[in-house]
Amino acid sequence: MRGTILHSPGDVRLEDRPDPTITAPTDAIIRIVATCVCGSDLWPYRGIEPVNRPTPMGHEYVGVVEAIGGDVRQIRPGQFVVGSFFASDNTCEICRAGYQSSCVHREPVGAGGAQAELLRVPLADGTLVATPELPSDDLVPGLLAASDVLGTGWFGAVAAEVLPGKTVAVVGDGAVGLLAVLAARHFGAERIIAMSRHADRQKLALEYGATDIVTERGDDGVARIKDLTGGLGAHSVIEAVGTQESMLQAIRSTRPGGHVGYVGVAHGVELPGDELFFSHVHLHGGPAPVRRFLPELIELITSRTIDPGKVFDLALPLDQVAEGYKAMDERRAIKTLLRP
Amino acid sequence: MRGTILHSPGDVRLEDRPDPTITAPTDAIIRIVATCVCGSDLWPYRGIEPVNRPTPMGHEYVGVVEAIGGDVRQIRPGQFVVGSFFASDNTCEICRAGYQSSCVHREPVGAGGAQAELLRVPLADGTLVATPELPSDDLVPGLLAASDVLGTGWFGAVAAEVLPGKTVAVVGDGAVGLLAVLAARHFGAERIIAMSRHADRQKLALEYGATDIVTERGDDGVARIKDLTGGLGAHSVIEAVGTQESMLQAIRSTRPGGHVGYVGVAHGVELPGDELFFSHVHLHGGPAPVRRFLPELIELITSRTIDPGKVFDLALPLDQVAEGYKAMDERRAIKTLLRP
Repeated sequence: MRGTILHSPGDVRLEDRPDPTITAPTDAIIRIVATCVCGSDLWPYRGIEPVNRPTPMGHEYVGVVEAIGGDVRQIRPGQFVVGSFFASDNTCEICRAGYQSSCVHREPVGAGGAQAELLRVPLADGTLVATPELPSDDLVPGLLAASDVLGTGWFGAVAAEVLPGKTVAVVGDGAVGLLAVLAARHFGAERIIAMSRHADRQKLALEYGATDIVTERGDDGVARIKDLTGGLGAHSVIEAVGTQESMLQAIRSTRPGGHVGYVGVAHGVELPGDELFFSHVHLHGGPAPVRRFLPELIELITSRTIDPGKVFDLALPLDQVAEGYKAMDERRAIKTLLRP
Repeated sequence: MRGTILHSPGDVRLEDRPDPTITAPTDAIIRIVATCVCGSDLWPYRGIEPVNRPTPMGHEYVGVVEAIGGDVRQIRPGQFVVGSFFASDNTCEICRAGYQSSCVHREPVGAGGAQAELLRVPLADGTLVATPELPSDDLVPGLLAASDVLGTGWFGAVAAEVLPGKTVAVVGDGAVGLLAVLAARHFGAERIIAMSRHADRQKLALEYGATDIVTERGDDGVARIKDLTGGLGAHSVIEAVGTQESMLQAIRSTRPGGHVGYVGVAHGVELPGDELFFSHVHLHGGPAPVRRFLPELIELITSRTIDPGKVFDLALPLDQVAEGYKAMDERRAIKTLLRP
């Protein structure tokens, strides 16, 4: 099969690779229908995270089940499935509490690289969710979004305890931030402030339900949020970047007693304990337990209640994967969808 | 009147000072019945926090109202009252959400120093809570505990979302940690693990409802908590120290999806963002909004349902305040009660 390998910062290629095989009786092999490039893929692509060896890339996927191991009971060949970046048994105490991405048996699905034609998914029964029927082609981008960016934005909104009537701010206007806006709207937030400096992203944020746009960042951004909330700060702030600046911006934009839901993978973040202490915020986040939300998200997408697929503003054949990375790196695209 | 002044680390004295007066129409002046030395008073006493000028000490108090300003409506002279370390209006949006210690009009009550004969309390209506009648003398220590350490331990348990059936660990065996054990028991925790290395404190922890004692600290302490919880960590961990080691011990002792309630005033704490991200814990805490809990705590104490006053294992007349600090500094006493 063909799969994507990152050799060094900026050097990403589609190459011939061995087909994955069933290695445990709980595995499934799926034929990828669509995959994509994640904001977090840009960290090593940009050299901010080290690239120590040729690395298979991609952890977002939808596909059709091709083969299953002898212990797989819920998933059958021929089904169209959506899965998340961490495989989970979905039966342990941590999974049952809704934290499948910290499952005691978790494995990164992306180890084999989902930007490929075939993917081995461990713990298939606990990881994959099948759609009720084969989806029409126009639903594929939305279902692919559920695999990570929608599930992650959704978790950000849940972690930030977005509820009807609340004022919500979203730090970060990548696909996760934009879909956090969609989630906040779905949960009934009264006011949704998207922090964005890019016209195309502002437009999509408004389409997804943002009521206000703040273009300032850092202390100025915090001051604008305070202005818009009677000096108090937002009830709920969703952080979808993962830098020191964005985390502090999120914490400082939240009122005492309010909630920060942080889902940007933290890079070089050190939180000052005394400031956090006196901020009185609730802090929750981490790698989204997407599996918790997948059944509901699939239902909302296939019923056409929500359309998260709009975050894909560039669709390319898989063999143009290098251009897909480049367009996102240069901010010419919000998110690149790839079809084998 | 006489009041306590800290001149430099280790040098604390009772001195003649001017009587406080009503300076705003919302003030009350109370005659102190009992006050005490707080673990946080030891930070400047030990020179860990700078002492830049002679500083009035003390922020925990019960007393009888002596005078009120012209705008005070709820509180009357002659009432026995309990208040918290931050004055609050108890009417702003932040107070109504239960975060009185971040009230938009908050003032530190301790500015004048509660280890004294008289104390000016700003925003008396929103800060003080009167007991139904003058309490008998043996209830005074318990009511004094409600002023800070009980309210703080209680908030720790609330912030850590202690609920029936949960396993709770408490980091810190000072008065706050011990009363967090009492709170966890009151909230119905099934298992309460007190982390303590001191026999007298272990004894009181067990009396307050601890089911297990862990004497190890740091990584060893975390390993013991994991041992006791099937490898997962506690559902709820209450942090009542405020150091880097204790915060990391708390976070690492909590299972994914669990809750850390941190109430130890943070000193020199820097939380590593990536570890926090992958820990999947909820983090909440800060200066306890004691006012939120005071009506309930006063009811539980005056009905003799709980007895938080046991944390005072040393009672001295106010003029022996220096010995009161020394005994706590040298860990000869858990907490010193002072009577003018």
